[in-house]
Amino acid sequence: MNVLDPHTITRHGKRAIERCLALSRISEMDGGILRQYLTVKHAEANQQAARWMQQAGMTTWQDEVGNQWGRLASSDPAAKRLIVGSHLDTVPNAGAYDGILGVMLAIELADLAHQQSVELPFHLDVVGFCDEEGTRFGATLIGSKALAGDFNANWLELTDEHGTTMADAMTVFGLDPLKVQDAALDPTELLAYWETHIEQGPVLEAQQQAIGVVTAIAGAKRALVSFKGRAGHSGTTPMHMRQDSLVAAAEFICKVEQSAAQCSNSQVATVGYIDAKPGAVNVIAGKTTLSLDVRAQQDSELDQLLHSIEHHAQAIAEQRNLTLEWQWTHAAAAVACDQHIMQTFMEACARNDESIALLPSGAGHDAMAIATKCPVGMLFVRSPGGVSHHPSETVVEEDVARVLAVMYSALAIQIAKTQETYEPVTHDDVALAAG
Amino acid sequence: MNVLDPHTITRHGKRAIERCLALSRISEMDGGILRQYLTVKHAEANQQAARWMQQAGMTTWQDEVGNQWGRLASSDPAAKRLIVGSHLDTVPNAGAYDGILGVMLAIELADLAHQQSVELPFHLDVVGFCDEEGTRFGATLIGSKALAGDFNANWLELTDEHGTTMADAMTVFGLDPLKVQDAALDPTELLAYWETHIEQGPVLEAQQQAIGVVTAIAGAKRALVSFKGRAGHSGTTPMHMRQDSLVAAAEFICKVEQSAAQCSNSQVATVGYIDAKPGAVNVIAGKTTLSLDVRAQQDSELDQLLHSIEHHAQAIAEQRNLTLEWQWTHAAAAVACDQHIMQTFMEACARNDESIALLPSGAGHDAMAIATKCPVGMLFVRSPGGVSHHPSETVVEEDVARVLAVMYSALAIQIAKTQETYEPVTHDDVALAAG
Repeated sequence: MNVLDPHTITRHGKRAIERCLALSRISEMDGGILRQYLTVKHAEANQQAARWMQQAGMTTWQDEVGNQWGRLASSDPAAKRLIVGSHLDTVPNAGAYDGILGVMLAIELADLAHQQSVELPFHLDVVGFCDEEGTRFGATLIGSKALAGDFNANWLELTDEHGTTMADAMTVFGLDPLKVQDAALDPTELLAYWETHIEQGPVLEAQQQAIGVVTAIAGAKRALVSFKGRAGHSGTTPMHMRQDSLVAAAEFICKVEQSAAQCSNSQVATVGYIDAKPGAVNVIAGKTTLSLDVRAQQDSELDQLLHSIEHHAQAIAEQRNLTLEWQWTHAAAAVACDQHIMQTFMEACARNDESIALLPSGAGHDAMAIATKCPVGMLFVRSPGGVSHHPSETVVEEDVARVLAVMYSALAIQIAKTQETYEPVTHDDVALAAG
Repeated sequence: MNVLDPHTITRHGKRAIERCLALSRISEMDGGILRQYLTVKHAEANQQAARWMQQAGMTTWQDEVGNQWGRLASSDPAAKRLIVGSHLDTVPNAGAYDGILGVMLAIELADLAHQQSVELPFHLDVVGFCDEEGTRFGATLIGSKALAGDFNANWLELTDEHGTTMADAMTVFGLDPLKVQDAALDPTELLAYWETHIEQGPVLEAQQQAIGVVTAIAGAKRALVSFKGRAGHSGTTPMHMRQDSLVAAAEFICKVEQSAAQCSNSQVATVGYIDAKPGAVNVIAGKTTLSLDVRAQQDSELDQLLHSIEHHAQAIAEQRNLTLEWQWTHAAAAVACDQHIMQTFMEACARNDESIALLPSGAGHDAMAIATKCPVGMLFVRSPGGVSHHPSETVVEEDVARVLAVMYSALAIQIAKTQETYEPVTHDDVALAAG
């Protein structure tokens, strides 16, 4: 594969951004971005992505769950599939880049390979997932889980805010709810899944890095935790006679922060929601409920942190003579990124004189779902201000070109590795990071 | 004055309770108790109270702000006035006794004095205040403040939830908004104000006491306190890069509790309301607002506690690099009960073989407003479970008879003191408590 000149990369990077902005106008929402699963805007976005895929020399199709595909085919029809992509749906009042940028960069990658007439020892399959955010029906990662054969048939009965079931929405969209399972991939055909995504966090920016190689997608568990005490008059109940659920919750929130901060491997724990009842200025809160969200790169680390947090909750409830209720609401296992793909990405960074930043993904991604069927790898692009899921979400134009260059190099390395013509470049950073 | 036989006291105590329950049926609310200022139900309650006053031998009138009065007159037209009462209005979904019991007991006291043909060296004036709770127009203690000459003319422009101004509501009720100031009492005519009230707290019950003599009505200050940090993704923002407003608020809430608990004179501090924005399970809270309610028996104690709490808030905000906003929403100065009246009440307790419990009132009462014009004293009746402002608010029947006996003895002592025929009873408890 030829080395690309910087102007070409810059042009294609710019176009990826322009296309993100163009897609942001395909929205269900006035004055903001919203594109949900199985809506007319979902169909329009798929059609637009398909046109761009076709312009990049790809054949296109939509699968049984509503994912949009494009293929730059290998000359060998029996070749394996390297899938590159991300999602095309958005949260309400979204930014333009979360998910979308990964799909647009995958199309640019295919376009570059097509223009360079690269001989592919695998099919280069670009995917735009139909639902990662899960905002319409509650279930998340619907597109990638369907590929992994993990589409839950019960989801067909889930309803949106208007009472429409997923099954009915599929029918209107032109899909057959009885055939969704056919979207599942055959693992024996798969080489790997690559995903480029905005970081959605502040780490790369703080490190003055444009690009990061993702080590793992953090496992996450969520719970609703309630402390139940006794309401009372704020003026007439002496301090020593109180069973104040809000003070117990406050003590717990401090312990949640301390417990996570003491961990050494990027564990995080967050209380983002709290509700104190009755919630009046002159009444001691009888019951306080809060959300807990805990994430770690390894499940054992997650369990260890949660064990410590649960222990604190129990101790606080006992000491204050309160009732503790603990309701699990979500669990996702941690997913390690494939070491070989990480190595390929690090090597590609080195070839482009990018210093290498390794970091975990605290947010969930489609790669989590695909990881049950093939090796996955992810690249992160710096998120200015760490902002995401917000209209002010943005990217640095130069960063996008730089990550496209890294993706192109990674493709070249992957081709060489697949053809067994690969010769590693010695580079201190790579050796260090891979150690 | 004759000593009353226990049967008489029991019968009158029972009737006070029955009348509270009868008044609870004069309600604006289906299936619950609500009686607000200047409503038809306010008028009906005044009329009912007036009938009972008349049956007790009193002359009755309604004053310019809507308080209901009854007088058992002294034979000396120029005699001073001993005012005994409480309020007739209620919060929404109230109990039957808060305020009301104090008015009904005052009527029973007058009835007993009337039946016993007691010669009064002062007018015994029973008052049922029109608005203590302040739930209709926001302003509180309207009835008692008008008596104290502290009715704020701006209140006439306050509106209820339907947009009706207080001035218009007065006109409909049959009052002249321009004459409200005429409700003000002439301090030179006043002997004292006595109020019996349910405790609305758990202290007497915990001490197995039926009756308490109130030492002071706590001063109170309230604020809305906001910590402003930075919202962020709960998965992608490392612990050390957060500006989490909810953890700051939690740390503050713990300090509020600690600061009050360390005080030695019944100070209390409460956070009853909290709101974390945006309030999502996977978003670090960017802004958290909470209420603060602090009370103390003396203003200096209140200020000292608040100073400590404010200091903690500033330290937490600084340490976490957050913005602190502090908005005062309410301030009421502490009111000490009159030592002579307390002595009379303690003496009356001793005459009835009641052990003496002294306690502050953490809640505000009409006596606070009247205290600017004459000496005030309060008796508390045990509140089972400490419950108030709730349909399950109740009293122990025997307690009500016992406090009526104490009130009757106190009236006898006050008559003797006024006539300068008073001879103190030696009694260890009294001496002790008065020390």
